[in-house]
Amino acid sequence: MNIECPAPVETADRICLAHGSGGELSQRLLHKYIYPHFKNPWLERPHDSAILPLDGGKLAFTTDSFVVSPLFFPGGNIGELAVYGTVNDLAMSGARPLYLSCSLILEEGLPLRALDRIMASMGCAAAEVGVQLVTGDTKVVERGKGDGLYINTAGVGRVACKEHIAPECIETGDVILLSGDIGRHGMAVMAKREGLEFDSPLQSDCAPLHEPVLDLLAAGISVHCLRDLTRGGLATALIELATASGRQMTLQEPEIPVGEAVQGACELLGIDPLYVANEGRFIAVVPVEQEAQALAILKRHTVSAGACAIGRVGVSGHSSLILQNMLGCERVLDFLPGEQLPRIC
Amino acid sequence: MNIECPAPVETADRICLAHGSGGELSQRLLHKYIYPHFKNPWLERPHDSAILPLDGGKLAFTTDSFVVSPLFFPGGNIGELAVYGTVNDLAMSGARPLYLSCSLILEEGLPLRALDRIMASMGCAAAEVGVQLVTGDTKVVERGKGDGLYINTAGVGRVACKEHIAPECIETGDVILLSGDIGRHGMAVMAKREGLEFDSPLQSDCAPLHEPVLDLLAAGISVHCLRDLTRGGLATALIELATASGRQMTLQEPEIPVGEAVQGACELLGIDPLYVANEGRFIAVVPVEQEAQALAILKRHTVSAGACAIGRVGVSGHSSLILQNMLGCERVLDFLPGEQLPRIC
Repeated sequence: MNIECPAPVETADRICLAHGSGGELSQRLLHKYIYPHFKNPWLERPHDSAILPLDGGKLAFTTDSFVVSPLFFPGGNIGELAVYGTVNDLAMSGARPLYLSCSLILEEGLPLRALDRIMASMGCAAAEVGVQLVTGDTKVVERGKGDGLYINTAGVGRVACKEHIAPECIETGDVILLSGDIGRHGMAVMAKREGLEFDSPLQSDCAPLHEPVLDLLAAGISVHCLRDLTRGGLATALIELATASGRQMTLQEPEIPVGEAVQGACELLGIDPLYVANEGRFIAVVPVEQEAQALAILKRHTVSAGACAIGRVGVSGHSSLILQNMLGCERVLDFLPGEQLPRIC
Repeated sequence: MNIECPAPVETADRICLAHGSGGELSQRLLHKYIYPHFKNPWLERPHDSAILPLDGGKLAFTTDSFVVSPLFFPGGNIGELAVYGTVNDLAMSGARPLYLSCSLILEEGLPLRALDRIMASMGCAAAEVGVQLVTGDTKVVERGKGDGLYINTAGVGRVACKEHIAPECIETGDVILLSGDIGRHGMAVMAKREGLEFDSPLQSDCAPLHEPVLDLLAAGISVHCLRDLTRGGLATALIELATASGRQMTLQEPEIPVGEAVQGACELLGIDPLYVANEGRFIAVVPVEQEAQALAILKRHTVSAGACAIGRVGVSGHSSLILQNMLGCERVLDFLPGEQLPRIC
């Protein structure tokens, strides 16, 4: 399988699409142009939500802007994506999602019927999750200054566990659990955008993840780290965790579930499913002695019924992500330099 | 003075610029296409921030997307606007701003130097206010699908008073205080955008408003309602409050301060300063017996040194906003149907 992605076209001094990939250039952008202006302990570590002390409790707070193109794709649309994406970021910090904000940037000419359908999806998604959309904002930009609709959601949740859940809590010997097959969201969006048709239809995995996560915590599983697999996919998320935890992680390639339709589409397009975006998949890093119990809990939920163990955390001092194939051959996975699939979320 | 603004070009079924004006079409968009999908008590009443019960305390939560064009204008840029705008929305709910999120939608081709300058401004603005920017997101869209940079900030604050501050708390006989001269932000952006030059330079009033507000509350002023005067200006904000409180409000035109440069530019362009956006002005509705004390507190702060009383709240049962001129002649102010100045914030 070839990993082919356009070479990064970073002219020295301008934003390019690869800055939005979640990969190497995204990291560089953040660390060079953004973080230095806001020095505080929250930005110093990678997170899905910031954990804030407030009136004795702990609050999770997160934000995401959604620019997915097209607005409607097989298995979902930008509206439910904007609810689930932020709900999932809260869940990954061990928080119960409570409240969302919603800010719209509308392009002049957007059909009101499309807006109505998208808002209806957001409403259903929020009701399904049990979050309240309590505040919002609406802006309009001229034709040609947007792409129909961009949605920002920010979210607030209550942290549901006493233990810290973060990359620095990952320990040598921990097992890496994956909640199901990978690559469906990215390939569904890509296929729709490019007008591709496959024998087996590709559907986004777009879904809320808070229920299996809160169940793991309620059952007393010592969840060391959680991460949902969005832009950059499984590989990018685990490279970040390996780096942040200062540990080697080894994945067993045959254990990583990739559906037939995704595999076929990836081979056709020369894309590596390990780097393809998901919107309803996460990894949980737990102590090996709790592996069986954690997997049993995950399998109870439809959204994580395909959960499996895909790898282990190695010794500290050498952070890297290794993929071992069925023959035992190893290769190091690294951030993609460029952008495989722009505007996937 | 003429009120001239383009007739609203609402084709029956598409978004038009006037949907983003903060005026009549914005209201219609919200009430027809957005609120019905998210039924909850927070969206049923107009607010700058949602007030949420959390662990015994009260949390204010708000969001705003900033699409101002141009990114840099006399007196500020989109970065500080994005900090102050959300800080001010929190302050208008009587909350001390604590934490901000920041989500960027970058257009391919944006000079990194411009991004760096804007982020530096955001950093300085956040430090000045004493808020922490704790979480964020970055997306990139293709050239021609954005306009350089859009910024969303969401904010969380702790409500600093026991009393409810909201339109429904407004009482007959209350006095309406205005924190200073109006129209500077809108006219500064407009002048820069159109390449207009005036004898007296126009500078945005873009500034944080939490300090005078928190001082009013700390001094025990019974602040019934607060509102910052952004899109749609003083008139639109007060029409909303008159409607939401079910009361008539009467403004004394000669008491409303308008700077010479703003007055001149407005006359030249046929724009009514009462409807021009501000980003560092607010009104406070307080009991008449506390007028003098409240004004004295406001005048202590540079940002509200020009505070004055501009009108009174009349009887309930007939919500309208009346402007009385120096000859005692009255006219009713209503929402503008269209969009005077698009993309002002």
